[in-house]
Amino acid sequence: MSATFAALADPTRRAILARLTRGEATVTELAEPFDMSLPAVSKHLKVLERAGLISRGRDAQWRPCRLEAAPLGVATDWLDGYRRYWETSFDRLDDHLRRLQRKDER
Amino acid sequence: MSATFAALADPTRRAILARLTRGEATVTELAEPFDMSLPAVSKHLKVLERAGLISRGRDAQWRPCRLEAAPLGVATDWLDGYRRYWETSFDRLDDHLRRLQRKDER
Repeated sequence: MSATFAALADPTRRAILARLTRGEATVTELAEPFDMSLPAVSKHLKVLERAGLISRGRDAQWRPCRLEAAPLGVATDWLDGYRRYWETSFDRLDDHLRRLQRKDER
Repeated sequence: MSATFAALADPTRRAILARLTRGEATVTELAEPFDMSLPAVSKHLKVLERAGLISRGRDAQWRPCRLEAAPLGVATDWLDGYRRYWETSFDRLDDHLRRLQRKDER
């Protein structure tokens, strides 16, 4: 799970995962929207691959990347254990804003 | 969100958050179960505080830590966008295991 969260801690890697929800893509296709060098993208792909979040095709020349979402499910299960805590904190914020509004109306 | 995921990418920091679901705790109390030095724990707390996952009391001597779960809700919302992808990958695994079992029974 540490590897999953570490992989998700970078906006480019999150954007790569978002792109892969639309289907497989080669490194060149992934590099395009980010205006990054191929080696820089390859580095991000290695982090994603080690975390089990993508797999690569066997075709040596293209090796298309494919989203492997299972570790995201495991991460969400862990986060779900905290649901009642963040719901409480949203409720507290809600109460606070409501109190401010009432003060404002008076 | 990058700061949230980076903070969660360490098992000690995840264990600290788990401890704080049972209520506020001082650095000394948090250090105990981990057999870590106070400066090492303080370093982890700084990462959690910068990510907005904990807040510290104002009492200069104790500064008890408190869980702030809202960023975990934001992270879960993002991960929820991938739910159907990991559900599909679990289904594929399920199908695969079922086929293996049928083969085994024959």
